[in-house]
Amino acid sequence: MNFADRLAAAVVRKGTSLCVGLDPRIDLLPPELVTGLKAGPAGRARAYERFCTALIESVAEEAVAVKPQVAFFEALGGHGLSALDRICAFASEHDLIVIADAKRGDIGSTSQAYAEAWLAPRDGGPPVADAMTVNPYMGGDSLEPFLLACGAGSGLFVLVRTSNPGAADLQEQLLADGRPVWERTAELVAGWGAELIGESRLSSVGAVIGATSPEAVERARELMPHQVLLLPGVGAQGGRAGDLAAAFRDHPAGGLVVAARSVIYAWRERRGDWQQSVRLAAAELRAATPVA
Amino acid sequence: MNFADRLAAAVVRKGTSLCVGLDPRIDLLPPELVTGLKAGPAGRARAYERFCTALIESVAEEAVAVKPQVAFFEALGGHGLSALDRICAFASEHDLIVIADAKRGDIGSTSQAYAEAWLAPRDGGPPVADAMTVNPYMGGDSLEPFLLACGAGSGLFVLVRTSNPGAADLQEQLLADGRPVWERTAELVAGWGAELIGESRLSSVGAVIGATSPEAVERARELMPHQVLLLPGVGAQGGRAGDLAAAFRDHPAGGLVVAARSVIYAWRERRGDWQQSVRLAAAELRAATPVA
Repeated sequence: MNFADRLAAAVVRKGTSLCVGLDPRIDLLPPELVTGLKAGPAGRARAYERFCTALIESVAEEAVAVKPQVAFFEALGGHGLSALDRICAFASEHDLIVIADAKRGDIGSTSQAYAEAWLAPRDGGPPVADAMTVNPYMGGDSLEPFLLACGAGSGLFVLVRTSNPGAADLQEQLLADGRPVWERTAELVAGWGAELIGESRLSSVGAVIGATSPEAVERARELMPHQVLLLPGVGAQGGRAGDLAAAFRDHPAGGLVVAARSVIYAWRERRGDWQQSVRLAAAELRAATPVA
Repeated sequence: MNFADRLAAAVVRKGTSLCVGLDPRIDLLPPELVTGLKAGPAGRARAYERFCTALIESVAEEAVAVKPQVAFFEALGGHGLSALDRICAFASEHDLIVIADAKRGDIGSTSQAYAEAWLAPRDGGPPVADAMTVNPYMGGDSLEPFLLACGAGSGLFVLVRTSNPGAADLQEQLLADGRPVWERTAELVAGWGAELIGESRLSSVGAVIGATSPEAVERARELMPHQVLLLPGVGAQGGRAGDLAAAFRDHPAGGLVVAARSVIYAWRERRGDWQQSVRLAAAELRAATPVA
């Protein structure tokens, strides 16, 4: 089944466009999850697994998707990646769509290995993730293997306009025709996704648009009418869910509102049970998103 | 010690600017390395480790560096990443500089985890790699943690102008001032590396420039006088080592000639012992590079 159609059905059924970022950091975890573990990568990976599975249980009804940030697991080597495999499977069992935030991209024959890593059946089981993020700098042929995976039911989110200040260095540079570079990227993404539009009228090839700039979200929607916009930067980075209405103009699954720190570490600012605080923060954010 | 100085000393001492890409593919390995292994990721990771350690032994005297392509290991999950750790350690023991070809890049707090993964001491031991490749699309602040690692002795190679046809999609687009986007990237890279220039007059922040376009190499050298140019695309992709003289104009370590398939699978086209064929292909390529 087309990824965008599957996502759209889940958004409508669950009534939420919230995507929770899974960004575990050892120095920020609830102390009880770390107690008794050995120092070193194996112990840290175990703590990350405990934290992320508890997060998944806490947000399963409030969110439609989770977005594990691969970097935090990669920093623990093989232990980290094995833990991430199990976390992704756990999320799938809890009715959550899994978007591996990997931002990969390489020449075609190498991108094929990255597509295999995240989007192909692994060792007889299902793929690790339903979708992943990729980087467009190397151009269309570098993303070909990922697009092929979309033809087989996976989803893709291509970096277009990111939420960090450094977006000005390349993405905001003006081209000879007066457009910023990121609008050229948006045009490419619309093209790459044109043959992967499902019955929902959404494409399996989506775009990452930083939620810190509502103007960029508005413009992105114009340039990419069929793309699901993955909108990171809500909460800790300053983006506000209420400013993102343009993403949802044509379809309730036109955007995914991503929050990580403001949800998964909510308990650090509140009293009481930590999982309950996470659930509450997710519910509040869900209520503030345009689709709710 | 500054990475560029360390690299420059190794290039001069060993008299070679060859960097061998480690791109293992299960269907291309010497059959005797695969025999008797179980199917699945664990067995494949074991085969990759056998192949890559044998390659390292074969090219240790002909090459100054190896460039493992992380994607092929990532496709095997935790088994693959653990094998890659051991392969990198094996290469260091064999007097080879290790460049992790990861092409990572994310917002700063996430890039920090990627920098930890590859460039920070892991579990009490040394870093997995001496240097790594990164992607510039998200701009300067996204690379800050990698630049900090360079201050502590690591090296970086930023994608600037790649060897694949898709480079035309973004990198070759013309900016309002008439320059292609990649020249803007080159200018940024020169700036990011300005404070990391060593006694060799080379910077720890280098650039990836596809070897398939000698004109781009020439122009890159003008725009980035202190950058070591990592030059992939020689051999199977069509680049010729002899066309890359501009990279080496000012310093014998001004460029690293990267070959993967044409060296590591050389035995598929020749008779006799496979390791001997690899050694011979590496020696021939070394003799054809400008520094030799």
